[in-house]
Amino acid sequence: MTPLQVPAKTLQVPTADISPEMQKFIAAPLNPGWTFHPKTGEEWRAMADKIAAGVVPGLPAMQERMHVKVESSTIDGVRVNIVTPDDIPEQNRDKVIVHVHGGCYVYFPGASGTTEAIMMAGFGHYKVIAVDYRMPPEAYFPAALDDAMTVYKSVLKTTAPKNVGIIGTSAGGALTLEMVVKAKQDGLPMPGAIAPGTPMSDVTKTGDSFYTNEFVDNVLVSPTGFCDDAAAFYAHGHDMKDPLLSPVYADMTGFPPAILTTGTRDQLLSNTVRVHRKLRRAGVVADLNVYEGESHAQYQFDDRVPETKEAFGEIAAFFGSYLGK
Amino acid sequence: MTPLQVPAKTLQVPTADISPEMQKFIAAPLNPGWTFHPKTGEEWRAMADKIAAGVVPGLPAMQERMHVKVESSTIDGVRVNIVTPDDIPEQNRDKVIVHVHGGCYVYFPGASGTTEAIMMAGFGHYKVIAVDYRMPPEAYFPAALDDAMTVYKSVLKTTAPKNVGIIGTSAGGALTLEMVVKAKQDGLPMPGAIAPGTPMSDVTKTGDSFYTNEFVDNVLVSPTGFCDDAAAFYAHGHDMKDPLLSPVYADMTGFPPAILTTGTRDQLLSNTVRVHRKLRRAGVVADLNVYEGESHAQYQFDDRVPETKEAFGEIAAFFGSYLGK
Repeated sequence: MTPLQVPAKTLQVPTADISPEMQKFIAAPLNPGWTFHPKTGEEWRAMADKIAAGVVPGLPAMQERMHVKVESSTIDGVRVNIVTPDDIPEQNRDKVIVHVHGGCYVYFPGASGTTEAIMMAGFGHYKVIAVDYRMPPEAYFPAALDDAMTVYKSVLKTTAPKNVGIIGTSAGGALTLEMVVKAKQDGLPMPGAIAPGTPMSDVTKTGDSFYTNEFVDNVLVSPTGFCDDAAAFYAHGHDMKDPLLSPVYADMTGFPPAILTTGTRDQLLSNTVRVHRKLRRAGVVADLNVYEGESHAQYQFDDRVPETKEAFGEIAAFFGSYLGK
Repeated sequence: MTPLQVPAKTLQVPTADISPEMQKFIAAPLNPGWTFHPKTGEEWRAMADKIAAGVVPGLPAMQERMHVKVESSTIDGVRVNIVTPDDIPEQNRDKVIVHVHGGCYVYFPGASGTTEAIMMAGFGHYKVIAVDYRMPPEAYFPAALDDAMTVYKSVLKTTAPKNVGIIGTSAGGALTLEMVVKAKQDGLPMPGAIAPGTPMSDVTKTGDSFYTNEFVDNVLVSPTGFCDDAAAFYAHGHDMKDPLLSPVYADMTGFPPAILTTGTRDQLLSNTVRVHRKLRRAGVVADLNVYEGESHAQYQFDDRVPETKEAFGEIAAFFGSYLGK
């Protein structure tokens, strides 16, 4: 079939129906780290530590704004951060949200991986257990998923499955879906609801928006950028089309209700809507929210941005509708 | 704010999770009519007749596949085509769907404007009244909306408002929204549910995907193409930002439940998600379906395409959930 030739273009920063705070993220230049292509796990880790050092100093103020406290702990040997909101309404007290952070399976170790968990706890008023899963060079596939499953199984000992939610964005969105795939494979009960945000649901460079939004998404930028390299590095030779790495290829029958979030400029717009459609085709309740002008995962960059509050409001309302049912 | 420079690119035809039938539409070259810029209503009408002549010969076979019959009539002086499925299940017999066709307010007169109505009736098993509204050079804004409202008001005489649905795509998606805006303005009751498909909700060339998907969408192609010209021609000097022409600017409080449909390559992806978000922000039930790789309105180009059956299945299920409630 004949390919389409698309001429070069100049894109202005969109402003209609976009808050000034979000416009700043949309107006940012291409992520300078998009061409980072290290060869060793130690190099990935050094970059992860550098990025984390930019995140961690902001956490105390963020926790204060979100009215949560965070405690580091371990669950059956897996590192976790437990995020507890000051105020948990009655109907949320028997609920637990498991959080798996993003970062292409290599970024956001330790406390730096708690921002989304803090927002989920703060905006949603749920207790959230953030899994600080092992990443290269400490461990490779399926270590991240194994750690997440260890925490999920532990939570099931004290919490009814229907009262457990799972949330994550990007690699965390993929892990959210991978956990459900793995739970199905292992005969574990399904969680009550899931919130896979712009999931890396296909790490085989398949998905049309990888190409239509190449050099349009200012976060991931390109399917030849750092993120796909990082996923392959984590996979460590494993088949990239395994649904435990590319969950878009899973049989989604019997999945729990899911809310998906993405943006129109997102490299993973396609791989979010492919999951949405596969869920719907399998008869699963699946809600899709696409934010105007946003690149990859920008809806969860800063709790002070109105669209972030909106996105977590949608997710919290969805969990409120489906958890426990 | 600094604009983004996007280099030229070559886009392959996406195939993952896309039927071979839909791939053919996605693989089509840019719509050769995209640069059509006539100066008179007569020229628009000549082109509309030419396009219609390509559609009409296929209608008998389509009606047969969809198991519907179509009767031309008038309602309070407005031309309509009444589409009746051979089989209407009990729960749909007191329901009526009003259809407003697309075509940038200038295309698809008469029988050529019935294809979507036939699909709605055939896939959804509802009686559908397709409004063959006046278009240039016969009449200008607000003639299309006036004709649609005449039919809506007539239907309300015999059908409870909660049992009336409205569907339309592109200009028809805009008209669907404009009808609700106008009903609010005039103190008429709201319909039970609406299905605005990839609505031309903003005819001021605002909406980020006009630019990100310029020369990517092979149907509308560009905000400087025929469609925006046609909308301005229909507007006839009226303020393009009036919510009766650009309904994204309407107050959407109190709107009925809405299901929206678009594609990742659609010029109107942004103006679909902007409406979706505005509805949600106003507390309205609003469902969004985005189809992988599709350009503007391709989900309703051919009833034999699996994604078309899927899209109308979604719309019919949504009407089934909300009409009469």
